[in-house]
Amino acid sequence: SSDLRTSIGPKMCEVDCFNVTTSRMHGFMKKGMFTDVTFVIQGGSEKKRAHKIVLAACSPVFEAMFQSSLIEGSSNEVEINDVDQQAFSVFLDYVYLRDAKLVKNHANQLLMLADKYNVETLALVCDGYIEASLTAENAVDSLILADLFRRYDLRAKIGHFIKSNLEIISTYPSWAKLGGDFELMNALLHSFVQEQGAKVCSKLPNSVTWTIVRNEGDWY
Amino acid sequence: SSDLRTSIGPKMCEVDCFNVTTSRMHGFMKKGMFTDVTFVIQGGSEKKRAHKIVLAACSPVFEAMFQSSLIEGSSNEVEINDVDQQAFSVFLDYVYLRDAKLVKNHANQLLMLADKYNVETLALVCDGYIEASLTAENAVDSLILADLFRRYDLRAKIGHFIKSNLEIISTYPSWAKLGGDFELMNALLHSFVQEQGAKVCSKLPNSVTWTIVRNEGDWY
Repeated sequence: SSDLRTSIGPKMCEVDCFNVTTSRMHGFMKKGMFTDVTFVIQGGSEKKRAHKIVLAACSPVFEAMFQSSLIEGSSNEVEINDVDQQAFSVFLDYVYLRDAKLVKNHANQLLMLADKYNVETLALVCDGYIEASLTAENAVDSLILADLFRRYDLRAKIGHFIKSNLEIISTYPSWAKLGGDFELMNALLHSFVQEQGAKVCSKLPNSVTWTIVRNEGDWY
Repeated sequence: SSDLRTSIGPKMCEVDCFNVTTSRMHGFMKKGMFTDVTFVIQGGSEKKRAHKIVLAACSPVFEAMFQSSLIEGSSNEVEINDVDQQAFSVFLDYVYLRDAKLVKNHANQLLMLADKYNVETLALVCDGYIEASLTAENAVDSLILADLFRRYDLRAKIGHFIKSNLEIISTYPSWAKLGGDFELMNALLHSFVQEQGAKVCSKLPNSVTWTIVRNEGDWY
């Protein structure tokens, strides 16, 4: 109607169009319509069909994969063995819908997929959920996860949490997982120092930084 | 960075993600990457490759076409003979980018395509451009166009414009195009009456309405 046209500006229309479009594309994915790639999950226990263009638009890794003459490019099948079927299904839903709420119960596995396929917006959403669900029990595992996938802001926040709860956290068996990982311990110490407002030059070689931090006698 | 994550709410991220995604999909279309349908324009003078999922998400007509077992569904080629190559190229750009500015110089042909493929947002954009570029010279042709594609709000606005400029417009040769089209003349008269604030019951049969309007002696 005329009222509709005059009430919607170009920006509102844009958002509305995109929501309708993405929702319809997601529906085509769910129904297997117009799909051109199949994900074979956990050795074939489940298959999910999707659209190369949507995946490639979201991920430069998929873009390169589908353009290549490697097996994925020609067979149109991609094997997924590193996450379970449910987490991969949520990953596809996120790629189509960009709905952060989907991520909630699968943040750890989705952070791995976000890193593997270089989907930075998803990694940011995962960061938020991992931070929001930090506990004394999972803090060390979360720190290792954040470090593994180079989520340095998240790692610093977890470091602060660990510092604030060091007496409890260091009594858990998981604390021992930090043993022997010099880089991670170094990062943890950095996050301690940063919280005090001290500025440690990140351009210093690790060994030098390490010395500075130890000399401040902050962490024993 | 941490600043980035805390400064973007879910809504801003959504819009940003969609803009990046649509822009990348449009790039894949332009480069012919991951395409699965070819438009053969004006008997093969030009070909444009595109993605079924994007077209089908935008248009229920394309959705049905690509699902069907008709020639378009199986050959993955669609013939376009009703608009020129440039207008169809702009149509594809609009479908991918939803950028109203693209429509400006092709509103008439794009209104035809919006009607043919049932893309209502594009039709609304065309309405706006056709209304904005109304002149005494093109008013009758615009009225016929609006009537042909059932753009009734636009038709009423053009009717108002014609009424306001009737003395000039009725001297142009194009005025004669209205002769013999009872339905269109009836619609034009309705728009005259509506502008006066009179309410003509649209549920009356045309012949009755016609009589009422004539009796009011408004249009001679």
